[in-house]
Amino acid sequence: MGINLTNFLSSKSKNTRMIDFQDLDHVDGLSISVVSANLYKDNRDDLSMFYFRNGANYASVYTQSKILSENIKWNLNQNNQKVYSLLVNTRNANAFTGKHGYESIKKLADLISKKLTEKQIEDEETPKKILPKEIMFGCTGTIGEPFPYEKIKNKITNLVNKISYTQNKFLWMKAGLGIMTTDTKPKLAMEECKIGNEKVKIYGIAKGSGMIHPNMATTLAYVFTDANLSNDVLNKLLKKNITTTFNAISCDGDTSTNDMVTIFATNKANNSLIKNINDKKIRNFDLALNNVLLNLAKRVVSDGEGSSKFITVNVEKCKNEVDAKKIAFSIANSPLVKTAIAGEDPNWGRIIMAIGKAGPEINLKKLSIKFGNIKIVSDGQLIQNYDEKIVANYMKNEHIELDIEISTGIKNFTAYTMDLTNKYIEINSDYRS
Amino acid sequence: MGINLTNFLSSKSKNTRMIDFQDLDHVDGLSISVVSANLYKDNRDDLSMFYFRNGANYASVYTQSKILSENIKWNLNQNNQKVYSLLVNTRNANAFTGKHGYESIKKLADLISKKLTEKQIEDEETPKKILPKEIMFGCTGTIGEPFPYEKIKNKITNLVNKISYTQNKFLWMKAGLGIMTTDTKPKLAMEECKIGNEKVKIYGIAKGSGMIHPNMATTLAYVFTDANLSNDVLNKLLKKNITTTFNAISCDGDTSTNDMVTIFATNKANNSLIKNINDKKIRNFDLALNNVLLNLAKRVVSDGEGSSKFITVNVEKCKNEVDAKKIAFSIANSPLVKTAIAGEDPNWGRIIMAIGKAGPEINLKKLSIKFGNIKIVSDGQLIQNYDEKIVANYMKNEHIELDIEISTGIKNFTAYTMDLTNKYIEINSDYRS
Repeated sequence: MGINLTNFLSSKSKNTRMIDFQDLDHVDGLSISVVSANLYKDNRDDLSMFYFRNGANYASVYTQSKILSENIKWNLNQNNQKVYSLLVNTRNANAFTGKHGYESIKKLADLISKKLTEKQIEDEETPKKILPKEIMFGCTGTIGEPFPYEKIKNKITNLVNKISYTQNKFLWMKAGLGIMTTDTKPKLAMEECKIGNEKVKIYGIAKGSGMIHPNMATTLAYVFTDANLSNDVLNKLLKKNITTTFNAISCDGDTSTNDMVTIFATNKANNSLIKNINDKKIRNFDLALNNVLLNLAKRVVSDGEGSSKFITVNVEKCKNEVDAKKIAFSIANSPLVKTAIAGEDPNWGRIIMAIGKAGPEINLKKLSIKFGNIKIVSDGQLIQNYDEKIVANYMKNEHIELDIEISTGIKNFTAYTMDLTNKYIEINSDYRS
Repeated sequence: MGINLTNFLSSKSKNTRMIDFQDLDHVDGLSISVVSANLYKDNRDDLSMFYFRNGANYASVYTQSKILSENIKWNLNQNNQKVYSLLVNTRNANAFTGKHGYESIKKLADLISKKLTEKQIEDEETPKKILPKEIMFGCTGTIGEPFPYEKIKNKITNLVNKISYTQNKFLWMKAGLGIMTTDTKPKLAMEECKIGNEKVKIYGIAKGSGMIHPNMATTLAYVFTDANLSNDVLNKLLKKNITTTFNAISCDGDTSTNDMVTIFATNKANNSLIKNINDKKIRNFDLALNNVLLNLAKRVVSDGEGSSKFITVNVEKCKNEVDAKKIAFSIANSPLVKTAIAGEDPNWGRIIMAIGKAGPEINLKKLSIKFGNIKIVSDGQLIQNYDEKIVANYMKNEHIELDIEISTGIKNFTAYTMDLTNKYIEINSDYRS
């Protein structure tokens, strides 16, 4: 299984570069360290530290689940101008782990801040005393199992010792691999752009394969930039761009307790600090950030558990964006639509079903449906000379694009999803191991 | 595949009789005729006529989809005190069939009313001229294909000629089989009860296997009683009892364009006409009707496409029933919960996930979870000495019962669903044939 990413270049609506792997290099002010704490049975990397030697401005969006993992509660409880480190573990979600889970995070924050302060004293001219509250955490894996505090604690010294002040594509690949759970591929993306005359970088990594449905944020994704941006600007940029990227994807309609997307800015670039979201100098950065987030989000979908096809659902000309989104996700989350696409069956009747059940009022006489460039329904009528063979042939593609025109207004929404295959059932009905 | 129905006797909450097949016999005032119109490739029965020689009072609930099939539009457009016939075809949903679909229904109503009037003249002492608007239609099958009007029209004379004024268990079985699509078993249920001192019968048949999610009604179900009840009472009884029966089941979360549940009363029993829903004499009938509807609804779930396990989700002690229902269906519709159960994995972390994403506020400290009689989470804590082996053993049962206590109020809701298996994917990704 697995979808060839280069095919997404054909996606009409977005010109995201979807080459297999871009060559990420160094972001000034960021350091990375990745080890194995043996959280899995094999000794794959499962613990990653991101260290900002001079701190980073940041902004986060979190899951909207009413049950939050303990690390997310920790992150929400801190209130800093800057963070100095992010620790990410896989295999265990630290969700529904109660007091032990939260205390573990607290003790890890104590230990990491102590070790990183020692490192500051060794390496920096004007060392900074790093505080526990300046450490963030990302956790992903099984819900409800005891948090493997000891195993992680025992690796902190090792992690700090292995910190590398510069990155190259191999280290980014290692970090991308180090945050994976059931993912089959690491997810990396990058853009470069200018703020004023100064070149800046936007690098990102993400993980996610199942339990993917948008609700503010989805899965884990971390974006790093050397740009000089205030927390307020980062926050507004992230919220603005999450809607059409990580909040536009769905693998199985399920929402995790651990979702987290964070952007970190090391402020090492030479651009003058941007404090206002309306500053025109930020426009290129805004677009480039959207590209990075969409690129990562699409990679999550394309690696969706058991996926054999990437599906783009464009819902157009609705009264408002809420309606467009409801219809798009009603289609994108329908098991009957997703199994039909897995079977390469152009069963457009199921699209009709999903539009009908979505909720918004439909004027059937105005409805149009295209599969790729092939018109099927026009003004509420099956087109004359409809030839199913042509559409059946289109369904053999790895990237299926559904265009739905509701024609009751001017608002659009695009959702991205995958098909539903036997492989999904196999992956998720396998007893945990 | 297929679930052994006798096991549902263990379902704690409802004492519905779930023996494999009950022996339905005759309902006074009802006649049935079933033929094949060759709508499928084999010559299975696919066209069923229910005829009320002296008319029937009735009440219906229909799909809440914004796209209605043409037969449902027809039914909604008529406004009668009594109906004289219901015609049900399978293979074709008559949805998104436009003007041709609606005109076909209209022409069929003309033809049927004419043929049945001829039959009245032949058979009745005081023949009644049956009107087109006194004919109802149920359609089920593929959406968007041209309605096979000619094939059906050509069978009407044959159907009317074959009308049998009495029923026995074989004819009911034939009718149950005659309205099936992807179902693997016919669904029949019956109860007898008294209104005052008079014995009355409540017989029902249903079909449904995929595209099952509650939204007012689900799938096709037809209930026949000889009781003497007004349309208003029938309507109130149906609306009241649909909530905990057909609106409490889900196979795959998808909602059809054709859902329809109708109750017909031939008024042949000797009870004096009940006109008021608060009449105490109706209480036994109310309970018996709930049993018939729940029995049918459970049979639909147990025959859900590819199902290997029947799942009861009891959500208890919520602030209100809306919250309880949201949480119950968040669990019942989660692909991750359903695949875990298919894999006999007691992955209760996924139940936590589904509770969290449901929407209502949760006080984690009050949450309790049981699988069958096995306590897993109590007051928000994994129980001490939790032994996964015991739960894993429980998961081997064909009927899995999940008990979730939210403990923020006093309202409950029970949802019924099935697991999600490879077989579901196979059935639904097979190219239509």
